[in-house]
Amino acid sequence: MAEKQVVAFGPFKDFIADGVRVGDTIHLSGAVSVDEQGQTIHAGDIVNQGKQAYANISTVLEKFGATMDHIVYETLFVTDMSAIMGGEEQMGAFFGMRAEAYGGNPQVSQSLIGVKELVMPELLIEIKAVAHL
Amino acid sequence: MAEKQVVAFGPFKDFIADGVRVGDTIHLSGAVSVDEQGQTIHAGDIVNQGKQAYANISTVLEKFGATMDHIVYETLFVTDMSAIMGGEEQMGAFFGMRAEAYGGNPQVSQSLIGVKELVMPELLIEIKAVAHL
Amino acid sequence: MAEKQVVAFGPFKDFIADGVRVGDTIHLSGAVSVDEQGQTIHAGDIVNQGKQAYANISTVLEKFGATMDHIVYETLFVTDMSAIMGGEEQMGAFFGMRAEAYGGNPQVSQSLIGVKELVMPELLIEIKAVAHL
Repeated sequence: MAEKQVVAFGPFKDFIADGVRVGDTIHLSGAVSVDEQGQTIHAGDIVNQGKQAYANISTVLEKFGATMDHIVYETLFVTDMSAIMGGEEQMGAFFGMRAEAYGGNPQVSQSLIGVKELVMPELLIEIKAVAHL
Repeated sequence: MAEKQVVAFGPFKDFIADGVRVGDTIHLSGAVSVDEQGQTIHAGDIVNQGKQAYANISTVLEKFGATMDHIVYETLFVTDMSAIMGGEEQMGAFFGMRAEAYGGNPQVSQSLIGVKELVMPELLIEIKAVAHL
Repeated sequence: MAEKQVVAFGPFKDFIADGVRVGDTIHLSGAVSVDEQGQTIHAGDIVNQGKQAYANISTVLEKFGATMDHIVYETLFVTDMSAIMGGEEQMGAFFGMRAEAYGGNPQVSQSLIGVKELVMPELLIEIKAVAHL
């Protein structure tokens, strides 16, 4: 059996690994807009929630010695699609933040899915990423 | 082309593989609370539906010579988030069952997503797992 | 760091890669029923939307030198589960189209999930595939 390298430090670390590396692949848990105590932040603001989620992803990757450049795939689960896709303004704001989070146009494939609920009521977005070293 | 090792024995085996292994990675189909005939069981009870889904996952893994220890990532799709996250009692019941299914605190990353519908109306949870040998 | 092979040519190529290969794995973006200009086609018809999504997947795979045979896992996100699972007629029509898209009974594991919204209002299905060379 290949050895698992596990990173678990977040507020739910007793239940869920923040990331698991096996071979060259890192599977990250879905990242949301919470602070270090697990409190939701940026209620009502999907752009800043996304920014915080990417920041949390970056923190996990760092513990594996990886960066945002290693991400190959992401799924964005959102509770209101129009907050991102409702018009040019919304798209520009969200994808502008995303480009900044990645430090340029990311070379990442994606699914963007509108779901009913996320783990806490105030959350508007959850980002699940797969990275490859 | 790398050889695919395919396990297909479930009630939908003519349409869907229960699992596909290629290289060291096993991609499992989403597991739900059905019996060997594909009938939904444990209607209205998310804890026992989850237990059954994990049991079905374990059965598939066994056919690859693998165990729950090989799982690195799971997505839980649920139709009612409050059934798991609605309070300490619900969380304790669900995550307690999960720890038992894994035989201890799992070293697994996770997404938990509230969706509109699963493949059959009585289903409350679908668990999609990725394992690595 | 393993080299990423990126395919990006679709209507959203400035934001999202159509597919990223790293090692032997190709992560494809969620495919939907759009034409080359990104316009939704086959509104109201999930079978033909699915057919178009698979055609778009096939086009991306071709650019990696791969075919539908290389797919190991797919997630189908649908906005109305009954359009596929509502009865034998619906199931037959959808899974018949799928078998044709794969050129025979596919050896692919699957999740089929009913979601609230996809990226554009007319879309009924999004198909996310993982392939392995």
